[in-house]
Amino acid sequence: MSRQPVADLEEIRSRIDARMRRIKRRMLILSGKGGVGKSVITANLALALAMRHDGEKIGILDGDLTGPSIPKILGARGQALSAGPPGIFPVEGPLGIKIVSIDNLLPEDDTPVIWRGPLKSRAIMDFLSEVVWGELEYLLVDLPPGTGDEALTIAQSIPRVDGVIIVTIPSDLSQFIVRKAVSFCRRLELPVLGIVENMSWLVCPNCGAEISVFMHGGGEKISTEMGVRLLGRIPLDPNICKASDAGEPYLFTYKESPAAQEFLRIANEIELILEAG
Amino acid sequence: MSRQPVADLEEIRSRIDARMRRIKRRMLILSGKGGVGKSVITANLALALAMRHDGEKIGILDGDLTGPSIPKILGARGQALSAGPPGIFPVEGPLGIKIVSIDNLLPEDDTPVIWRGPLKSRAIMDFLSEVVWGELEYLLVDLPPGTGDEALTIAQSIPRVDGVIIVTIPSDLSQFIVRKAVSFCRRLELPVLGIVENMSWLVCPNCGAEISVFMHGGGEKISTEMGVRLLGRIPLDPNICKASDAGEPYLFTYKESPAAQEFLRIANEIELILEAG
Repeated sequence: MSRQPVADLEEIRSRIDARMRRIKRRMLILSGKGGVGKSVITANLALALAMRHDGEKIGILDGDLTGPSIPKILGARGQALSAGPPGIFPVEGPLGIKIVSIDNLLPEDDTPVIWRGPLKSRAIMDFLSEVVWGELEYLLVDLPPGTGDEALTIAQSIPRVDGVIIVTIPSDLSQFIVRKAVSFCRRLELPVLGIVENMSWLVCPNCGAEISVFMHGGGEKISTEMGVRLLGRIPLDPNICKASDAGEPYLFTYKESPAAQEFLRIANEIELILEAG
Repeated sequence: MSRQPVADLEEIRSRIDARMRRIKRRMLILSGKGGVGKSVITANLALALAMRHDGEKIGILDGDLTGPSIPKILGARGQALSAGPPGIFPVEGPLGIKIVSIDNLLPEDDTPVIWRGPLKSRAIMDFLSEVVWGELEYLLVDLPPGTGDEALTIAQSIPRVDGVIIVTIPSDLSQFIVRKAVSFCRRLELPVLGIVENMSWLVCPNCGAEISVFMHGGGEKISTEMGVRLLGRIPLDPNICKASDAGEPYLFTYKESPAAQEFLRIANEIELILEAG
């Protein structure tokens, strides 16, 4: 075997190109800061898009290798990724959504992925080049928090990113770090589609009062300051956490809730923006 | 200059040793998942320890290079790290707490740190080997979420870690990822001191009802399952977010609040555990 590493890399890139060419829209979901609910937003936007298209035409790549949570949120844990001559086959989520996550490769719950950057980048490249997505309308890539190796590798490896959705919560502290995410996109020339503000307010289940748990107005503020569209504001609904814990698709179980309605509205707006493109 | 990289690394390690020898207790604050309030917990535990010792005897190393938030939470932004012949001097937080964060090196708010793993590891090594902490009672190292490069480098570079505090929120989804953090510590033979459950419940400011925003009981559950002590449970107090946004030390501004009291109690318990050693 005398194959050169450079040839290897070129081959990988051309395989990624071939896979991505069959996907109509490639979206990244990013946040500067962890715990703002990025994976929950990704999962529910995928559900909303799956209701507008065929579920099998929607794919989610869980780019978070150390804290993979997409399969848990969508009730797709326990299924294992399989491989054949054409490549790696995704597992199946609700409505037939195609999911690829390192969680579907790990032997048990507690197994930590203790990998340094280069190994993580390699795993991401493998996912991009080897997964048999088939024809997709949308591939949503859930990036890990921050602007580190995985985010860089994905941003540089996907031939054309159609849009980045940035997730934040209202607090100033979160804004300050989300600004870095917007700058990250601009430096890498990734088109920012807009911001989704999550956990915007909480309705007290006892008295109905609106509580600003994580302050108020951060999404609007950063939207104005950075010149980025505010796609929507998702209220903090304890049922989102409950559904995610149970692996039930929130958008179906609580479809009349204000948060579910907002997810549907945001998915609609995303499609309008992309079509106007 | 013909110095070998290996000699370099040995020299760095011996410099780290010399710095760390002057620190009585070296603590890591870790979470598998982002956004569970790890930095807020670190900052407030540092304040609680500073009230029990001299504030100048408490140091915080902000190990989060892509989302540094310690200076913001403790109102120490705007100060710049300075360097002299003995090394890098920390900036000063409330009560004289010594803080080192990459935030105190960045030119402006929006600047993202777009570094791959090896560069981040090197920056962490520099902080460990070059910062002039002087004599400290406690050094708290706020690790970035996950079990990636920074966490690995810090865990492997600090000669003796006295204890790791793992931060979580009550939800199952969070537990599932925190289990990985506990396993990470065990593999690297780091002593886990215990778990702090954050955002445990919210008291409605209107009617006083206790709301389980992120489910209930996760901290206790993981504590039992993994055989790790539950150090305490911090309620979700919107004033924590408010104070952190304003850079006011929460523990002083809201010292009668249940959350502040719990921080003080946890700090006391940590000291008792370490003394019982």
